[in-house]
Amino acid sequence: MRVALFGAGRMGQIHGANIAVHPGSTLAAVVDPHGPSATALAERHGAVVMDEAEAFASQDIDAVVVASATNLHADQAEQGAKAGKAVFCEKPVDLSMDRVAAVSETLAQTNVPFMLGFNRRFDPNFAAMKAQIDQGAIGDVEMVTILSRDPSPPPIDYIKVSGGIFRDMMIHDFDIARWLVGEDFPHLSAFGAVHVNAAIGAAGDQDTAMVSLRSTSGVLVSISNSRRATYGYDQRIEVHGSKGMVSAENVRESTMVLATAEGVRLEKPEHFFLERYAAAYKREWDAFVSAVSEGRAPMPGITEGLASLALADRAVASAKAHR
Amino acid sequence: MRVALFGAGRMGQIHGANIAVHPGSTLAAVVDPHGPSATALAERHGAVVMDEAEAFASQDIDAVVVASATNLHADQAEQGAKAGKAVFCEKPVDLSMDRVAAVSETLAQTNVPFMLGFNRRFDPNFAAMKAQIDQGAIGDVEMVTILSRDPSPPPIDYIKVSGGIFRDMMIHDFDIARWLVGEDFPHLSAFGAVHVNAAIGAAGDQDTAMVSLRSTSGVLVSISNSRRATYGYDQRIEVHGSKGMVSAENVRESTMVLATAEGVRLEKPEHFFLERYAAAYKREWDAFVSAVSEGRAPMPGITEGLASLALADRAVASAKAHR
Amino acid sequence: MRVALFGAGRMGQIHGANIAVHPGSTLAAVVDPHGPSATALAERHGAVVMDEAEAFASQDIDAVVVASATNLHADQAEQGAKAGKAVFCEKPVDLSMDRVAAVSETLAQTNVPFMLGFNRRFDPNFAAMKAQIDQGAIGDVEMVTILSRDPSPPPIDYIKVSGGIFRDMMIHDFDIARWLVGEDFPHLSAFGAVHVNAAIGAAGDQDTAMVSLRSTSGVLVSISNSRRATYGYDQRIEVHGSKGMVSAENVRESTMVLATAEGVRLEKPEHFFLERYAAAYKREWDAFVSAVSEGRAPMPGITEGLASLALADRAVASAKAHR
Amino acid sequence: MRVALFGAGRMGQIHGANIAVHPGSTLAAVVDPHGPSATALAERHGAVVMDEAEAFASQDIDAVVVASATNLHADQAEQGAKAGKAVFCEKPVDLSMDRVAAVSETLAQTNVPFMLGFNRRFDPNFAAMKAQIDQGAIGDVEMVTILSRDPSPPPIDYIKVSGGIFRDMMIHDFDIARWLVGEDFPHLSAFGAVHVNAAIGAAGDQDTAMVSLRSTSGVLVSISNSRRATYGYDQRIEVHGSKGMVSAENVRESTMVLATAEGVRLEKPEHFFLERYAAAYKREWDAFVSAVSEGRAPMPGITEGLASLALADRAVASAKAHR
Repeated sequence: MRVALFGAGRMGQIHGANIAVHPGSTLAAVVDPHGPSATALAERHGAVVMDEAEAFASQDIDAVVVASATNLHADQAEQGAKAGKAVFCEKPVDLSMDRVAAVSETLAQTNVPFMLGFNRRFDPNFAAMKAQIDQGAIGDVEMVTILSRDPSPPPIDYIKVSGGIFRDMMIHDFDIARWLVGEDFPHLSAFGAVHVNAAIGAAGDQDTAMVSLRSTSGVLVSISNSRRATYGYDQRIEVHGSKGMVSAENVRESTMVLATAEGVRLEKPEHFFLERYAAAYKREWDAFVSAVSEGRAPMPGITEGLASLALADRAVASAKAHR
Repeated sequence: MRVALFGAGRMGQIHGANIAVHPGSTLAAVVDPHGPSATALAERHGAVVMDEAEAFASQDIDAVVVASATNLHADQAEQGAKAGKAVFCEKPVDLSMDRVAAVSETLAQTNVPFMLGFNRRFDPNFAAMKAQIDQGAIGDVEMVTILSRDPSPPPIDYIKVSGGIFRDMMIHDFDIARWLVGEDFPHLSAFGAVHVNAAIGAAGDQDTAMVSLRSTSGVLVSISNSRRATYGYDQRIEVHGSKGMVSAENVRESTMVLATAEGVRLEKPEHFFLERYAAAYKREWDAFVSAVSEGRAPMPGITEGLASLALADRAVASAKAHR
Repeated sequence: MRVALFGAGRMGQIHGANIAVHPGSTLAAVVDPHGPSATALAERHGAVVMDEAEAFASQDIDAVVVASATNLHADQAEQGAKAGKAVFCEKPVDLSMDRVAAVSETLAQTNVPFMLGFNRRFDPNFAAMKAQIDQGAIGDVEMVTILSRDPSPPPIDYIKVSGGIFRDMMIHDFDIARWLVGEDFPHLSAFGAVHVNAAIGAAGDQDTAMVSLRSTSGVLVSISNSRRATYGYDQRIEVHGSKGMVSAENVRESTMVLATAEGVRLEKPEHFFLERYAAAYKREWDAFVSAVSEGRAPMPGITEGLASLALADRAVASAKAHR
Repeated sequence: MRVALFGAGRMGQIHGANIAVHPGSTLAAVVDPHGPSATALAERHGAVVMDEAEAFASQDIDAVVVASATNLHADQAEQGAKAGKAVFCEKPVDLSMDRVAAVSETLAQTNVPFMLGFNRRFDPNFAAMKAQIDQGAIGDVEMVTILSRDPSPPPIDYIKVSGGIFRDMMIHDFDIARWLVGEDFPHLSAFGAVHVNAAIGAAGDQDTAMVSLRSTSGVLVSISNSRRATYGYDQRIEVHGSKGMVSAENVRESTMVLATAEGVRLEKPEHFFLERYAAAYKREWDAFVSAVSEGRAPMPGITEGLASLALADRAVASAKAHR
């Protein structure tokens, strides 16, 4: 699979390295409006620089990876699909349900393989937890608790275009909830608050949020988010069922333990997503390559994006009503 | 302090032993309609058996401990107060807000010391967590997560008179939330489900429940309950703040660790409240004796009972509306 | 069982409370050359004060507990035995092999029940570990690692009469090694060092010590001791076998966990033996009462004391040879 | 740095991938008597296949990595040094002290950079532990406990040429002890046993071993090894000092925790050295490239190999004397 990568920023560099090192894929081209970034990334992995039109038109390109600025995702995904390329698209496809629905329509017509970058499904710890559930180790799933906290908030300029905490941050947790429960959530209740930075509130957003969900069959889910955790990137999930409980705990920076007169100190959780989810990004890319090469529909697809965005929109409305 | 203990059942036996062993109190009398139980407990600790009227009338009794059947709590607490005794009352005072308000009124008039048996505040692990918060170790409290699961449900006959999962079980967690946050909760959202035993649903109750709270200043609280956990009594709290997070984890049956080809096995959490909260009951009784002997109002008092019952009533209504 | 307690100091107070609260024993008398201590302890538990001769002569006394100064242990144990009392004796019986052998001879002649206070066998955590071994969970025992560190060294005056680190401190670990392996140790190698306090070295002792043992069948044991651990009383054992490994970890002061920018902090191990082994002392006393009342020989007995003292003597000689 | 890799087996493949991906090195050539292995590895990383003579003679080669069969290490290291190449050599250089001393002499004469593959110094967990020691977090080092167990023994044919458990397996732990303590060990005592496989004993070796060391200043070290651990690759170190203790614990396969009626199950330690030390091999290679490019002598060098082999030889003799 010869791949054109759209976006040479932080996420583009991660995907670029994973594409280059995977035995089933080659990084053929890099596309980025910022020339020097595109050149640097292309040279590092023996790829060429293309512009958008070239990449979509090239017979040498089998797949596109959309890791550009968020406002470009939907267009590039659609163009890739229309050009007959397999498409891997970073989240979110778009912040508007209508726009995502339109992309979904295009994908249905073009029938190309499409995968959405909900990377957490591929974290080895969460995957080990999911495997236990699938093997029946905890019986029927009854309650899910998802705790997700960033080490520090993004710049306020990012907050303003992010779609807000529910669409930008908690959307990952909505996807995890759907992945674990496998049902619709007819009931949702959301609360938000501003504790971290008053400017986030002034921008009409919250930095602390909590959502409860109730699925069709009565599975209860609690999700909580904060834009700040002094001790690192806090990413935990636990699932309680009829036969037991399974959880995935944080990954620490090392297994070092220091015992002194002050107490017993463990290392902090790995700092942020680049460190914590390094293995997840690799496994995610492998899942895309495997699905495409074996003719299976990649998962998660556009449907997962639509469903999680719908939950985020409902959370925005519920949190607003609760203020 | 010479104490008359009302109730010689499971809770009465715990309180009886703690009263007898405390250097500041003596178990003077045991009152229970079931004669043999009263006699056995009295003999074990060198006390005498009395009937209700005797105990209230006796000049030899300084305090009463109400650990009888739930439907007797309010009456015995009021009679004790009117007789001028210090009163320690097991939770709940009553399942009806009106009845608890009436007891509160009586207590205000009689002005006797009164303490309500919300034992978890006295668990050494929760207390260590609270001490860190009070010392400012995590800065301002922003989010609280309370997970509380019983090892197995009570008999269905108990369920029917219990007031339901929110008033009988989650009321402890409401008290903990109030203790940790120290504010009112103008916003509450509750979900319930029946997963453990269909008979609990048939009795109009739920066995699985989840509540979100938002305090006046925007502190968010998640509480979840299940009437069954195969791995033991699951009692955890974590509090996230502006400077860090503090939690109190389960207490395991021992520190034994077994590593074999099947994995690494830790012991289960201590089975149920008698084991897990043995130290809490002792510390609770010490707090009562200390407060009374030093002329301070014992905490938690009737106000805490009223406030938590009010939250439980709101949760019942919210969960009903969400079905 | 009516008990005369010899010694009203720290250990005497622990044993006194356990004797008093046990349903099968009564604290009848306290014997201590320091009158006020004897009186205070006796009054606390409703006992009388006796002198040595009275206690041994009294028909009202069934058993004696020897928790006096170390240099009195052997005499009091022998007198108790000659008076036909069941004897519970704190360790050590004596620091001299010859004297312990003489006591052993007396016990054999009098045939009274005798138990030696090697309390660690009764720690619930070590007992849970041992139960796994006995059930075959780790197969055949092959290697044992015992780590034992006191929070701080005793006064130098105590050191001088203690018999030294191997006879005073490591003797507990020798007993544990014998308990776990159940074989003789024909091979022993010891090293000592002075790191904590030069005065300990000046007194001819060491404060840091390490011993390796090889049993008849080739089970290897490592024991290490320090007289100081800044983080509390460190008491860990692990046993490796053909089918797995089992360990007993430290007991922490609480299950509180504090995560901040400095890292994730657990509580320290419980400070010292009074806290860590509180449950062990209770279970030890129960084992004595049960054995005597059921006509079984209490374990550990004088044989265990002799065998562990022999290992300590060999360690002293080996460490000396290695300097 | 253009590298010729000697050996295309398991270790060669690990080093080959790390050389190829490092920005400061290129895998230029692969040398292996087994042609297909050499070709496959060379093709994977865009290198060419050479024979020994070509590689040493080539002006295009700056460094050699010796990851061939153990009996070739010394010769290839010497030839590389004489050809003026920087040399990275897998452990052991040789099983004979005389042969290692001869290599050391050659290295002194040729003055090329030389590094020995004691990979554990580069494990991020051990490195985090060492950093705490170097920063003074535990004060002066007083006692070290090293526990090292393989998941299963190597084939008996390997055992026969391995030099035995002390020279083949415990040599890593001797290096760690020297790295942590930084002193000579005038005192050593070793015990061995055969528990895992009688054929290992028949071959004159042991499969279970325990060594105590005492350094010049009195630091005490305990090392224990087993050729088999049912629960995975057990690699732990703890260091006790005047101000505290620091340890590095096992790395688990994931952070998943499963709680059921059977207990609470953690994942096993990562299975064996390929998984556990994957990061260590990368960091080790980076250390070599950095040292060579910056003109520093790589560490650990031949001196470390000599010193650890000397300890192993003494352990062999001590264990023999103790049988």
